[in-house]
Amino acid sequence: MTTERKPLNIGMVGYSFMGRAHSNAFRQVGQFFDVPYRPVLKAAGARNAAAVRAFADQWGYESVETDWRRLVARADIDVIDIASPNDTHHDIAIAAAEAGKMVLCEKPLGRTAAESGAMVAAVERAGVRNMVWYNYRRVPAVTLAKQMVDAGKFGRVFHYRAKFLQDWTMSTDLPQGGTGLWRLDASVAGSGVTGDLLAHCIDTAMWLNGPIAEVTAVTETFIKERKHQLTGATQPVTIDDASLFLARFANGSLATFEATRYARGHKALYTLELNGQHGSVFWDLHDLHRLHYFDHRDEGTTRGWRSVHITDGDHPYMKHWWVPGLQIGYEHSFIHQVADFLGSLDGDASAAPTFREARATDLVTDAVLASARSRQWEPATEA
Amino acid sequence: MTTERKPLNIGMVGYSFMGRAHSNAFRQVGQFFDVPYRPVLKAAGARNAAAVRAFADQWGYESVETDWRRLVARADIDVIDIASPNDTHHDIAIAAAEAGKMVLCEKPLGRTAAESGAMVAAVERAGVRNMVWYNYRRVPAVTLAKQMVDAGKFGRVFHYRAKFLQDWTMSTDLPQGGTGLWRLDASVAGSGVTGDLLAHCIDTAMWLNGPIAEVTAVTETFIKERKHQLTGATQPVTIDDASLFLARFANGSLATFEATRYARGHKALYTLELNGQHGSVFWDLHDLHRLHYFDHRDEGTTRGWRSVHITDGDHPYMKHWWVPGLQIGYEHSFIHQVADFLGSLDGDASAAPTFREARATDLVTDAVLASARSRQWEPATEA
Amino acid sequence: MTTERKPLNIGMVGYSFMGRAHSNAFRQVGQFFDVPYRPVLKAAGARNAAAVRAFADQWGYESVETDWRRLVARADIDVIDIASPNDTHHDIAIAAAEAGKMVLCEKPLGRTAAESGAMVAAVERAGVRNMVWYNYRRVPAVTLAKQMVDAGKFGRVFHYRAKFLQDWTMSTDLPQGGTGLWRLDASVAGSGVTGDLLAHCIDTAMWLNGPIAEVTAVTETFIKERKHQLTGATQPVTIDDASLFLARFANGSLATFEATRYARGHKALYTLELNGQHGSVFWDLHDLHRLHYFDHRDEGTTRGWRSVHITDGDHPYMKHWWVPGLQIGYEHSFIHQVADFLGSLDGDASAAPTFREARATDLVTDAVLASARSRQWEPATEA
Amino acid sequence: MTTERKPLNIGMVGYSFMGRAHSNAFRQVGQFFDVPYRPVLKAAGARNAAAVRAFADQWGYESVETDWRRLVARADIDVIDIASPNDTHHDIAIAAAEAGKMVLCEKPLGRTAAESGAMVAAVERAGVRNMVWYNYRRVPAVTLAKQMVDAGKFGRVFHYRAKFLQDWTMSTDLPQGGTGLWRLDASVAGSGVTGDLLAHCIDTAMWLNGPIAEVTAVTETFIKERKHQLTGATQPVTIDDASLFLARFANGSLATFEATRYARGHKALYTLELNGQHGSVFWDLHDLHRLHYFDHRDEGTTRGWRSVHITDGDHPYMKHWWVPGLQIGYEHSFIHQVADFLGSLDGDASAAPTFREARATDLVTDAVLASARSRQWEPATEA
Repeated sequence: MTTERKPLNIGMVGYSFMGRAHSNAFRQVGQFFDVPYRPVLKAAGARNAAAVRAFADQWGYESVETDWRRLVARADIDVIDIASPNDTHHDIAIAAAEAGKMVLCEKPLGRTAAESGAMVAAVERAGVRNMVWYNYRRVPAVTLAKQMVDAGKFGRVFHYRAKFLQDWTMSTDLPQGGTGLWRLDASVAGSGVTGDLLAHCIDTAMWLNGPIAEVTAVTETFIKERKHQLTGATQPVTIDDASLFLARFANGSLATFEATRYARGHKALYTLELNGQHGSVFWDLHDLHRLHYFDHRDEGTTRGWRSVHITDGDHPYMKHWWVPGLQIGYEHSFIHQVADFLGSLDGDASAAPTFREARATDLVTDAVLASARSRQWEPATEA
Repeated sequence: MTTERKPLNIGMVGYSFMGRAHSNAFRQVGQFFDVPYRPVLKAAGARNAAAVRAFADQWGYESVETDWRRLVARADIDVIDIASPNDTHHDIAIAAAEAGKMVLCEKPLGRTAAESGAMVAAVERAGVRNMVWYNYRRVPAVTLAKQMVDAGKFGRVFHYRAKFLQDWTMSTDLPQGGTGLWRLDASVAGSGVTGDLLAHCIDTAMWLNGPIAEVTAVTETFIKERKHQLTGATQPVTIDDASLFLARFANGSLATFEATRYARGHKALYTLELNGQHGSVFWDLHDLHRLHYFDHRDEGTTRGWRSVHITDGDHPYMKHWWVPGLQIGYEHSFIHQVADFLGSLDGDASAAPTFREARATDLVTDAVLASARSRQWEPATEA
Repeated sequence: MTTERKPLNIGMVGYSFMGRAHSNAFRQVGQFFDVPYRPVLKAAGARNAAAVRAFADQWGYESVETDWRRLVARADIDVIDIASPNDTHHDIAIAAAEAGKMVLCEKPLGRTAAESGAMVAAVERAGVRNMVWYNYRRVPAVTLAKQMVDAGKFGRVFHYRAKFLQDWTMSTDLPQGGTGLWRLDASVAGSGVTGDLLAHCIDTAMWLNGPIAEVTAVTETFIKERKHQLTGATQPVTIDDASLFLARFANGSLATFEATRYARGHKALYTLELNGQHGSVFWDLHDLHRLHYFDHRDEGTTRGWRSVHITDGDHPYMKHWWVPGLQIGYEHSFIHQVADFLGSLDGDASAAPTFREARATDLVTDAVLASARSRQWEPATEA
Repeated sequence: MTTERKPLNIGMVGYSFMGRAHSNAFRQVGQFFDVPYRPVLKAAGARNAAAVRAFADQWGYESVETDWRRLVARADIDVIDIASPNDTHHDIAIAAAEAGKMVLCEKPLGRTAAESGAMVAAVERAGVRNMVWYNYRRVPAVTLAKQMVDAGKFGRVFHYRAKFLQDWTMSTDLPQGGTGLWRLDASVAGSGVTGDLLAHCIDTAMWLNGPIAEVTAVTETFIKERKHQLTGATQPVTIDDASLFLARFANGSLATFEATRYARGHKALYTLELNGQHGSVFWDLHDLHRLHYFDHRDEGTTRGWRSVHITDGDHPYMKHWWVPGLQIGYEHSFIHQVADFLGSLDGDASAAPTFREARATDLVTDAVLASARSRQWEPATEA
């Protein structure tokens, strides 16, 4: 263990699902990873004073702010971590960058690629460290898949497919708007499942298989009206409940992508599969500690899909945890991302994905939404 | 057992994979099902005299013909069963219908919906029994899924997804053309995986979930040239190696469909899934004796995907086989189809799918290929 | 195909579950395997004249006999196949051997090792071909496991475990005795699950892993009384409902074995697993077309249990069936056994297991039942 | 959240695998559970000064002690948590009880039931809170299984089976003795897999299915000699590498139990299954977030094993974590146990299992080892 860890003061914006996941990562990283920095939970910021106070008590933040601008302005903050709803990302990130802070931002980076373009410009102009929480890259099984791709285990890739299936919004009684339900409000979220779920699928896909060239898409809003949580007024639903697209990657491979909140029986079934010349790999979030691998170069009669239990010491990140056979969970992906971020700070290379990398996903989701409107194939990269 | 079974004389065209599967079904049905007719393997027809003779000996056909026109003309034939390559379906079926024979045809019915339109007209004009071998409807697990749909177990349907993944053409050394490889020749087969594999997916999908309204598709030929099996000459590959499409069903549900022969590790992985309001169902051909079912109305804490082992006496077709727990295989789907066909002959209703029903699939595959060319959404039904 | 197949006349005793399975194997083998003999279904024998007549009609037997002694005496019979209840095996087999017939016998060979000792002596004295229907050896996945053992893929073996779980007798309303229920009558069956289910587990185990040296066992009859099917009288249940034992093999490996008809949710869940120095193998009857294999010599990070889909042309027996990816079922194990039997007839080596090999299983089941009574370890081989 | 949490000062003995797991639990519980006490990591104790210092720094312990007697004597310690090797449990626990401390002890409680008998007497005499870390009871899937048993979902139980399979000691090159390898030394550990792995299986089994009445067992040491880690001297191996037993529970059900470190391909495969009149339940540690459940009262045709993804808010403990579909891991079982322990402190009922409950497992492991020596059935409870 590094005996002298340098403190790194965190200012957290938001206190909900992602605020908890990030805070937990900052609290735990030091017990498991030999990192050169020690995250200090300096301040938590949110408009709701009571809520942010309770959150700070629960997680051990030293102070609270009810205006993110004051948080950004504080001299004792090194890192601004944005875990608040999507419509706040743009302004906070740019202000934080301009204040010289490192900026961490929950995904998607912007509600649109136009928003995230400005954010990329800001952090690069300021020269500050920046990273987006596409946490699934740090699920050890997914990290291993990436290492296998990089090692050439698959050869030429022919196919990719990903889906993210949920069923939590299927009831017509579910309201929209208000705290905890902003994901159903397009003005806040930017889109529905496209930005919320497909963004994860796209980020991992491009990490593993390179840029997506073009897409054709369809979206649907199955339940057209809902009551507002606070006012009770019936309103049109503005988000996409389901979003499906076909893609052609720059490397010539073809793909299907799908996300929905109307797939009964699936809670968070993010699956991905890549088929290459020499083998294939499959992963799903419902059993995130396993990677499924087919190696065509195995002996013919005993060749089969291998279910690799990703709990060994030589699997990515796993030597830091328990003993072989004992699985970790969802939250650990965030801890790994923090470990990589802290580990990168004394070096030149940024921990990935940076804002610039993450914006590529926003270009694809923009193209998906555009294609759903135009009923045409749309390019997924900037000209 | 019906003691007095009426003979039904079969004239088989073709002797390859499907010729074997159909012949086996005719030979076995009487030992397991109490059917009113006894198929008699009267004659096998094919151009290659030695091959058709060997086939007839192996399977017990009483005679052979080397010209299908003579077979169709024989007075002692009740049923013409077409198991020869796709480019022969149209002419043989129409001639058989005009000769007053019942006509069974391997799928896809035609190479195009134009071809199959003429075939439908012929059998309907002649008033002869007709059926297409979309055998997967008679896999007991799939039949049960249909019964569950019809019983209202799923409510409003939101999503359907199907894929058929293979990897047998991935080698650049594989030749094309000639016996056994006509599936790689678009002039014979009509298309590649679209007609060969997607057709199965589409038939089952529309059986379970109703008509497909429109599609957007992409196809690809990954290996552009191959040597001809017989001549050794390098030729362009004319078929689609992969075919993917998004669909909107008439009932408003959305779907992804995909077929490929470039998915390493999958030999015949036909999977289907339907997500409805009250539950979901999943099936795959690699474990065809299981049906996976999620019932949202189960008690919350113990709700989960059920893996139903379709081997009980009250599962479709299964009381005719062995005892609970003992699985059947691929070939049984054909035996079931023959049992249903024979069982229907003394009644009014035809065994499904008739030529007319099967042609609906050709309309969809035509739309898929059209969309792949036009890069537009295409309607999948006739105006 | 062998053009000139020699006829081999079969005399079948019994017409129930196993009578059907064997008859089906004889009928089908010639269409799929290039065997030098053609089984001719010459005669079926059973006491119930109407039942055996119906069976003969269904399966195409040329004639019937209502006394097995007459069947055994017929000059036109080459093979006596015993598919009748266990209490008939001894007398029929010995008479058939003495009449110079080849003898095939359903398992278990005898109700006791004493019975089967006399049967072995009879066939060996008569010098007639003999074989016992331990059909699970010919499930291709199990055959492959044996080939892997023989090829040294596992090295020193440490553990073996097998179980056979059913749930069909759990209802107190189920009667016993009479047709179809003789398996619940110890005087007919010899024992309950020990001879019916464990016998299968033991045969495969010793085939894969060599002799069993000693056992300690427990048995239980959970429901103590049942009504007789015909008389309605309440009678004590004489069979074992469950039978469990620990074993030490001659090679030093340890094992657990279990069979029961009181395992809710399992219909015919025969599972086996072998753990050796270099790898392990697992198989279960509910997905009989898969073999699970772990190879410790695979690269560390991508090592995992392989699910091998046993449908390729280079898997045992599979080139005779359909195409890769398409599974076969339970009944095919019998067809394979017939193919091996017919294929062996012109050579010196008998198709396995012979009566002598099968008797080794009766020695183990005797030891299991003895240990359940003595509450001691009992040797499982003859002194 | 409880705003005023009372501090509870922890004195930890040991710093290895279990020291980490317990410490992590104390650190995390407050962020996720609304408990009335706040664990304070007051002191860590171990003989190795450098090691315990590094451990204390890593985990945030305020102080260290190199003699557990000084730790036990400290007035500022409320709870002694024993996470040191098995041969230390007895003395530390008794001293801690006599000092009036609450005592938490890693399993197994004693090396023998004689040791644990004295420990039970000590804590009961002192009237101090006591608990043993049989953590698997608090895996939510296992907790749910217990709730299902208690709710009568299974009816009369017929069968139980459990196994715990590992492969980490299969290399002959692995040394024994010394730090980190005390589990291979019977004088320290008490036994091999019997106390290490079977103890877990037995604890859960009796929790779910009541007392075990009697057992018959076999144990084996496959590799007879190893080099000592520190001295390099070749020594006999004194532990059992494998331990298998049959059991009869007090309720009449039968069981197989097995533990080994020689099952290639399994790292920590703890599996359990219970078969009752109305249904069955299965769980395994390699996918600890799933419970498999068969309900015989489901409709016949769609009845199947349900794979329940234990991540919903109404599953035990899960509302405290993330959102449905997102799994937790191994370490969370310890956090749940601490939450229950802290939650119980202001009430009368102790958090389970107490020393007295945990001793029942030592009686069974004693019986297993005795039976392996005597080759007889042995009673598993005190007369």
